Amino acid sequence: MTVLTILTAADKKRPAHFDRLAEEASEVRWVEADELAAALPGTEVLLMWDFFSPALKDAFGAADELRWIHAASAGVDSLMFDELRDSEVIVTNARGTFDQPIAEFVLAFMLHFAKDLPTSLEHQRQRIWQHRESRDIAGSQAMTVGTGAIGRAIARLLRAVGVNVAGAGSRARGGDPDFGEIIDSAELASHVADIDWLINIAPLTAQTTGLIGAEVFAALPEHAHLINVGRGATVVTDDLVAALDSGQLSGAGLDVVDPEPLPEDSPLWQMGNVVITPHMSGDSAGWSDRLAAQFMANWDRYRAGEPLANLIDKDKGYAAQ
Amino acid sequence: MTVLTILTAADKKRPAHFDRLAEEASEVRWVEADELAAALPGTEVLLMWDFFSPALKDAFGAADELRWIHAASAGVDSLMFDELRDSEVIVTNARGTFDQPIAEFVLAFMLHFAKDLPTSLEHQRQRIWQHRESRDIAGSQAMTVGTGAIGRAIARLLRAVGVNVAGAGSRARGGDPDFGEIIDSAELASHVADIDWLINIAPLTAQTTGLIGAEVFAALPEHAHLINVGRGATVVTDDLVAALDSGQLSGAGLDVVDPEPLPEDSPLWQMGNVVITPHMSGDSAGWSDRLAAQFMANWDRYRAGEPLANLIDKDKGYAAQ
Repeated sequence: MTVLTILTAADKKRPAHFDRLAEEASEVRWVEADELAAALPGTEVLLMWDFFSPALKDAFGAADELRWIHAASAGVDSLMFDELRDSEVIVTNARGTFDQPIAEFVLAFMLHFAKDLPTSLEHQRQRIWQHRESRDIAGSQAMTVGTGAIGRAIARLLRAVGVNVAGAGSRARGGDPDFGEIIDSAELASHVADIDWLINIAPLTAQTTGLIGAEVFAALPEHAHLINVGRGATVVTDDLVAALDSGQLSGAGLDVVDPEPLPEDSPLWQMGNVVITPHMSGDSAGWSDRLAAQFMANWDRYRAGEPLANLIDKDKGYAAQ
Repeated sequence: MTVLTILTAADKKRPAHFDRLAEEASEVRWVEADELAAALPGTEVLLMWDFFSPALKDAFGAADELRWIHAASAGVDSLMFDELRDSEVIVTNARGTFDQPIAEFVLAFMLHFAKDLPTSLEHQRQRIWQHRESRDIAGSQAMTVGTGAIGRAIARLLRAVGVNVAGAGSRARGGDPDFGEIIDSAELASHVADIDWLINIAPLTAQTTGLIGAEVFAALPEHAHLINVGRGATVVTDDLVAALDSGQLSGAGLDVVDPEPLPEDSPLWQMGNVVITPHMSGDSAGWSDRLAAQFMANWDRYRAGEPLANLIDKDKGYAAQ
């Protein structure tokens, strides 16, 4: 039987889906970050229930029997260190769980800006009734950076409300069912002159770190907005602040920032054209249960010797398509 | 030839669409509210370009040649006084122009609340980074009160993003292409127990004035939100404030209120679960041009002796279906 270690944290729920693990594993080791290294010897399966923790990198040397790591997250950037990448350990993720909530969150950011809710909310605080024009999103043009499962869910939702959606991915290709033509994200700056909404949902890899910076902001039209629901480090924060400050960029909806939590002295907090949400876009009511159920389904496959779902391509750093 | 009077106001644009009227009418009288009575004698066509003005009711006795009034608005409640209703004067409105913008605005309100943006914006002001859960709108249940052109646009947009939509109209009927079953809005309270989003877009008539009050709020679930993009007086303001205050209603997105502008001492301004926007939901960029073009198309029909589009059924107080 299998020793299962679950890396958790004080604020994490323990859904009832996990109850049967007590009978199905030879041992279940619930540990927090500082206990991880001590728990790894003998562990065959590791569930990163506290998926943001960077603790595994330091503790990984203690792993001797580890065969499978499941991350209860879509991004696995905190797991893509050399020792794990070069090992035989299989990594799976929570692909699919966050698609619909994040797509809706992107739409919420877009409509917030298109309907000029920032001004209405400011006027409301001052008890000012002042009619203004707003914008329609139907007929506007979005570019999704990241063409994985979540990027596709975003594209489909936006298209359902009449938004045109282009895609930027790790390589240029045509004939895509959701995006049609996909451009190489390395050439992003030369493809955004007509983009109203630049939406980042790319996995954080060497290729995407700092991908969206001064050059891209300069190429976007001044009325454009950035929406980041991927990883903060895909955007060059200083360049973003400068572009928002100068009016080169009209606004930003940021569910992820670099670093997280956003430092108290960050100028982003008080910019009137910025909305900051605390890395919550995928976490709609029931998300813990959905993540737990998804792990348990893979757990059943593992015990039955069947192929696991949602395998990560460790060389690429995201889900194998 | 025809004398055309255009009721305008200081803040209203004069789109270039109107330029040719100088040649096509025998006289064009641009007037503001206090000049209306003096301009009406001899006027055959009246364009209510300042569509919120209640000035016509007092001035109507001066109309001697009036045959057609076009309101550059969807709602025509300010025109439905007895003398006009009982006259032979034809009334048309701006049906269609506001459908898409208002539907998007409703979606903006819904996502604002579902994604808990009020809390995020408050936390942002305090530089607090605090993860929370949000809600999905897909799978939630909306009820649209008002099943005219805008109500249908709302229903179609919401269904496109996975929201279930029921309808309440002036009479119960089945087999509707957009709503399926439509309930009688007079029985609203007995049909809202499962409604997450109550959306008002009903025309303001004797039947709909005060339609949404204490009884309806008591029947809604506590997590429900009210969205009003119709007319403020369809909702009983005191009952709304009480329901929001007691937690009987979770929140409200109000593009219309009673009265307008919202008085400075209204408790609604400072409620954290209320978003107030100044009757702007239909007015997306280009709206003046669209309204002007729509009037000009009807003007051309009028001059050609063809039937006018968007006739109002004056007994009902809204567009003849």
